[in-house]
Order: sequence, then C-alpha cells, then structure tokens
Amino acid sequence: MTEPGRSVPSQRAEQWLRRDQALVWHGFTQMATYADHLPIVVASAQGRELVDVDGNRYLDAISSLWVTTLGHRVPELDEALRRQLDKVAHSTMLGNTNTTVVELAEALAAVVPVDAPHFLFASDGASAVEQALKIAFQFWVNQGEARRTRYLALGNAYHGDTVGSLSLGDGGFGTSLFDPLRFPVVRTPGYDDPGWLDKAMVALDAHGGELTAVVIEPLVQGAAGMLVAEPDDVGALARAAAQAGVLVVADEVATGFGRTGRLFASEWCGLRPDLLCLGKGITGGYLPMSVTVASGHVYDAFLGDPERALFHGHSYGGNALAAAVALAHLRVLEEGHVLDNVRARAEQLSSRLEADVLPHPAVAGLRQRGLMTGVQLVSAPGRRLGREVCDAAVGRGVLIRPLGDVVVVMPPLTVTATEIDRIVSVLVAALEDATGERAGGT
Amino acid sequence: MTEPGRSVPSQRAEQWLRRDQALVWHGFTQMATYADHLPIVVASAQGRELVDVDGNRYLDAISSLWVTTLGHRVPELDEALRRQLDKVAHSTMLGNTNTTVVELAEALAAVVPVDAPHFLFASDGASAVEQALKIAFQFWVNQGEARRTRYLALGNAYHGDTVGSLSLGDGGFGTSLFDPLRFPVVRTPGYDDPGWLDKAMVALDAHGGELTAVVIEPLVQGAAGMLVAEPDDVGALARAAAQAGVLVVADEVATGFGRTGRLFASEWCGLRPDLLCLGKGITGGYLPMSVTVASGHVYDAFLGDPERALFHGHSYGGNALAAAVALAHLRVLEEGHVLDNVRARAEQLSSRLEADVLPHPAVAGLRQRGLMTGVQLVSAPGRRLGREVCDAAVGRGVLIRPLGDVVVVMPPLTVTATEIDRIVSVLVAALEDATGERAGGT
Repeated sequence: MTEPGRSVPSQRAEQWLRRDQALVWHGFTQMATYADHLPIVVASAQGRELVDVDGNRYLDAISSLWVTTLGHRVPELDEALRRQLDKVAHSTMLGNTNTTVVELAEALAAVVPVDAPHFLFASDGASAVEQALKIAFQFWVNQGEARRTRYLALGNAYHGDTVGSLSLGDGGFGTSLFDPLRFPVVRTPGYDDPGWLDKAMVALDAHGGELTAVVIEPLVQGAAGMLVAEPDDVGALARAAAQAGVLVVADEVATGFGRTGRLFASEWCGLRPDLLCLGKGITGGYLPMSVTVASGHVYDAFLGDPERALFHGHSYGGNALAAAVALAHLRVLEEGHVLDNVRARAEQLSSRLEADVLPHPAVAGLRQRGLMTGVQLVSAPGRRLGREVCDAAVGRGVLIRPLGDVVVVMPPLTVTATEIDRIVSVLVAALEDATGERAGGT
Repeated sequence: MTEPGRSVPSQRAEQWLRRDQALVWHGFTQMATYADHLPIVVASAQGRELVDVDGNRYLDAISSLWVTTLGHRVPELDEALRRQLDKVAHSTMLGNTNTTVVELAEALAAVVPVDAPHFLFASDGASAVEQALKIAFQFWVNQGEARRTRYLALGNAYHGDTVGSLSLGDGGFGTSLFDPLRFPVVRTPGYDDPGWLDKAMVALDAHGGELTAVVIEPLVQGAAGMLVAEPDDVGALARAAAQAGVLVVADEVATGFGRTGRLFASEWCGLRPDLLCLGKGITGGYLPMSVTVASGHVYDAFLGDPERALFHGHSYGGNALAAAVALAHLRVLEEGHVLDNVRARAEQLSSRLEADVLPHPAVAGLRQRGLMTGVQLVSAPGRRLGREVCDAAVGRGVLIRPLGDVVVVMPPLTVTATEIDRIVSVLVAALEDATGERAGGT
C-alpha cells in the first residue's frame, strides 16, 4: 500500500485511531468529530512526506503546522542531534550555561534583525511572546515610568494561547469566552482593513504615553488566514512607534526562518524590532524551541540591582539538543541556498494558483507572502467548506489544513517544482470533490 | 584537570563566559553579576555529573533545575531518541496523530492518578498550567455556568511565569510588578501557615459557587523553598472542593515522576485531581515536554458542537522525539526500581542533614519530601547567604542553587549512597566557607 492518500481508513489505521481517541486530546480540534476527518496516523516520514501506519504517503503541505522547513529526516539535523546526544541532552541555563547554546546564540546574532541582540530561550512559541510582553513591561518599570502599562495590538492578531499572548491576540479563534482572564489592550484594525496603518497611527498619537509596546506580526497575520500587509506600511508603524518612544515587539514565530522568502519578515519591512519572538522553524521543525530576542538597550535596563533582573525562566529554556539542531539548521539554510528556492517556488505557486485555483467559483481570493499562502473560499452558510476541501486533499495525499474558510498552503522551504504542481493539482481536484464544480463553471 | 569544581575560572572558561555574557540572557539571573557566581560552562555530562569546558566535574545535585531524573546520558533514553529519529522527529497533532504519542499516552494512562485520563501535550510546564486553567474555565462555560470564573490558589504558590500561570502564583519571586497584567484569584495562605487548610476551607465555603477550580501543588510548594504539607490535609482540601462542585487542578510539574518517592505526589495525598499538570521530569530531563491530563468528565464537557472545542494548541505539542524519550523513561522508572532508591536515599539524606547540617548556627530548619529538600538558612540582613553557600558548594564540585535563603538539594532519582554522603559533606564545608562557622559553633 504505497498509493498516495486514502478515503477510507484501513483496519489498522482505525485501530490506531481508536487508541488515539481514547486518550489523546488534540488541540484546536472538536474531538467528537475528530475521526470523521480522516486523521493521518503518522508512523514515520521521508523527505517532505509523512508516512502513515499503512505506508500511505502524504506531502506535508502545511509543514506539520508551519514548523518544518527543510523536510523530515534531514541528514544534517539528524547528525547534529546524534552528536549532541553524545555530549549532553540538557543542562540548566539558570545561572549556568552550555557551549552549544552559546554557539547557537552567536549564529543567531549574525542573522537576526535586532541591534545588539540578547537571547532568552524557552520552548513554546507562546512563551517567547509572554517573555517579550513581560520584558517590555518591566523595561519601563525599571526606568521608573509607571504610566506605561498598556500594549497596542492589531485586530485579527494571533500571538499564542497562554493568557498573556491571548490577551495580545484578538478575540477570534473561539477565545472570547476567556475575556475575564485577559488584560485589555489598545486594539486597532488588522491587515484586512486598508486603513489599518492610519488607524494605528491615530491610536499611537492618542495613547503613546501610556504604551509599553506596539506588538505586530510583520508582513503576515498568519493565523487570521494569511492576511498580508505592505512591507512599507509595517516599517512606517515601527518608525512612528520609535518616535513616540514606544517599544516594537515583532512576533515572527510563524514568519521567521525563511517562510516569506527572506530569513525574517522584518527584513522586507526594514524593521529592527526592540523585541523579536521566534519559534516554530527555529529547529527546522524537529524540536520545541522558542526565543525572545531583546535589543541591547532593552537588555541594559535589566542590569544592576538584584530586583532589576527578569524573574522569568522556563526549565527547558536553552535545551542543548534543540540548540544543536537549531545550529545545524541555520548552517543548512545558508549553505543550501534554501531562500532562493523559497522565492522561486513562491513565484511558481502564485502563478499556478492564479491560473488554476482563483477561477474556481468557490474561491474568493488569494493571499501570499513567500510560501505562506491562504486561499480564501466563498463562505457557504451552514457548510464548513475549508474543512471539506482539506479533507478531500488529504484523501488525495496532500496534507493541508483550513483556518475557517481559508485553505492554508505552506509547504516546506525545500519544496520542489514538481511538488508545487502536485499541490495545486490536488487542490483543484479537492475543490471539485467538495463543491461538485470546476474552475470556469464547467 | 579532572579535579572536582574550581574557585577561579580557567582562561578557557572565562573566554566562554565572555561569549555567553555577550549574547545569552539567563532566566532568574541578574546578568550584571552573573559571572561573579562562577557559572558552570557545561560541555558534556556523564551519569549524574556535568562536565565543564576544562573537564571539571560537578555532581548535578539540583537535577539541572529539577528536570533530570535518571542522570545524564542514559543509554535507554539515548537509544529511544536515536530510534525515533529514524522514524520522524515531529508531526503535527492538530487534527492528526502519531503512533509514538499514542503509545506514550497509553503508558501515562496506566500510571497517572486521574480517572479516565485524556492528554493534551505542550512543551513548557507553564503551558500545561495555562491549558489546565483554560480547560477549567471553559468546562463551566460549556455547561452554561457563567458564574464560575475565579480560582482559589494558595499563598507562596508558584505555577510558572506566563501571565496566566503567574496569576495563579503568589506575588513573590519579583512578580508583583506585573500585577496590572494578572487576573485576580481568591488567595488563601500557603503551607508555611499551620492553619492553611482551615483557611482554605473557609474560603471554599465563602466562594464555592463562583470558583472554577482549586489549584494546588500537592505535598510540596517547591519554588517557595520546599514548603511541605501533610498529605492528609491536601487530600481533605481536594475532597471539600469536590463536595463544593469545584474542580481540583494539581500542578505536579515539579513533584511528578518520582521526586517525592512515589510517581506522583497526589498518591501520598489520596488525591485524584480533575486536571493534572506535568512537565520537567516527564522526559527524564532530556527534552521539553509538558502535558495537561484531564479526567473523563472534564473532557466530555468539550464534546459536541464545534464551538465547544478547546481552541488551544502548541505547535510542538506531542513532539515525537520527546514522546519517544518519555516512553522509554517510564519503562526505566518501572523496571529499574528507581522509586525504591528514592525512598532509601531520601531517608539517608534526611538523617545525614539532621546530624551534620541542622546543628550549624546558620541553619534554621530542614524541609523534605522524598528527594525534594530545602535547607532553610538564618536570614542575615544585607547578605545573600543562600547564594554564598551554593557558590562555595559549586567550587567544591557539587551544583546546588538557592531560592533566597533556602538551599535546595534535589539530586537525580538514581543518586547513590556515596553521592548523598558527598553532597552533605560538601554542604557542611560550604556552610563553613560562607560563614566561617562550624556546626556546634566550634
């Protein structure tokens, strides 16, 4: 059984799914209907394909939820992990250090768009955002500016699921029920509003003196369905924030490490944030790791008396195994001309989607920056068309996942031209499966 | 250079420290004086010892901040990691699954003190707490009980550093400055108050109808300096909460996986929590992984319409590499009679500390549950005696770390009798180094 995809689970797969459903709670998933959507029971992987318990292969066109960069089972990353295993898996970074983490920090310092960077490691992306928001907050407290306690954040923003990161995020994604737990922020419209920049500028004028930081997802609001901004607009907001003396926090957990065709989306925007949040792609999709990068002038505000220190630290922050993989990953990204591939494949994906997918009557629009792509479907009341299209694509051997009515396509950075063609062909067929209609209405 | 410890860093170590200090921000650490405390620059490890760049060895008597269980470079864990690497490092658990994660969930289900358990994985321990608090909150919303929006949490509690977990935690550890970001809770005294149980009962009576959950660290409030409770008292509070219809959240991130002499501290207390938070030791100290365990009746409240689902999920939740290690770790814990060793070594540690450390004039008391140990020093105004004693111990080749005036001793679960003797002897010598005084005042 090496056919791509399947529409009915095998007995073996069903058995695994029963065991899974009995015990595992999957995030962002209604577990009552979980098994109806033909979940893939991954047993192994090869290159950019996941392999299920029956040997069926699926092109991982969502990069295992936006984390995988080079693909799975990358020899250089495997080797780095094995070597580190022969040294030490983990040692605490609280008050002590580890040579591999130092080397990773040096490699990151050479590429991050942050002045005089300092690196505070964690594991979950949300934790990197929590660290950034607490650093921004204490930055002002340490300087006696007690008035600056609020954040400016955008509509549709998503920064993670922990209470602090959820507070910075907007109310979508089924989170409004948690309002009693969230701290309030100054909220201005997101990238779907053509006037978002002007409105953010007005809010910055009105609230500048009480703000700790402006928090943005540079270039792409990913979880909102790949809403995109003009790079110059993002840069303009950051400059205005700097002029108002407000810190800029760039959340590049999703956009970082090549996804947009440059190593960081901030580069497109001419942005050098005071605080930068990284995660997901940092280890190439192998291991949990996140980091908050603070600029020198932010870091310096925490030096001095004991109470000026940041009392925050995750047990596994600076995990040596993850650091070894992240270090090898940076080397491959540089030496392998991976970003050249991202830009070429992004162009190919863009023209193929415009030619073959956009004309479909169920498709309302396309949004793309690099290989971060959202296909906006026409909302069909009472239907979950995004879900149906993605289920059909999985049945045809291409793993994609919807965000509401948006089908997300985000293949690994090393995706080939042939694989791009396959993704688009399968998407076209899946649209037809789900709607019974073809592009051009034939 | 294989002498244990050192008091002056070598040129090589100093060079590494300069590189480290230039870029790495260490949690819970005043970076201005970081290098004064002779940080260990870990290059490798062997057994329960960390090895620095000069080949100096340090007994890891804080288990690399409470995470290491079996020691470093454990053949069974290394092997499990290598094998999983030949399958797949990571695949997304959002709407899909992975055989290794299913196997881990089954192994955990056999041992966790939770009825009909379901497992929602994350990476940072704080994220497991955030998941638990959001699950408890939405549990009531999903049942239309809008009045239940508050938590009862204890004085001195520590549950992590993200805004939600920080809100459940008490105001110590330099966190009061973040009060404007925290949601309020019903706070009753911690384990240092002999009347803590009665006062919690009174609060439960007064606020029962508005509470989502009672949140506790069963048996030991670790970060507060190893404050300990009587098991029966913890059990009594949990029973009272159940009678009041309030959920019980047990945060066993620190106490879980054998630290107290049983696999979970809840077992000592006869406690079967509705939500259990695990982290740290779950992978034996190898890789970031945490999990929120929900009982069946809590889980069931999330089944049904799409909007009843929990919209929460971390990208690396259910990482396959971490799961493979966690699975092997559980096997070794069972087969290796590790918990028998914990109980025997805990007894030895207790009697050695009472005989040789308690008599020292700078020591005010001892607190211990299993191998979680706090040596309470007499507060010396203007001095940071805990820091000084630990620095001296590190100089003598034993890595310990203070929590204020409390010296924490928490060796790996596989610590030997000889190593316990060495830890106590070094602690005695370090007390003398720091104070100039000997036990008995001679």
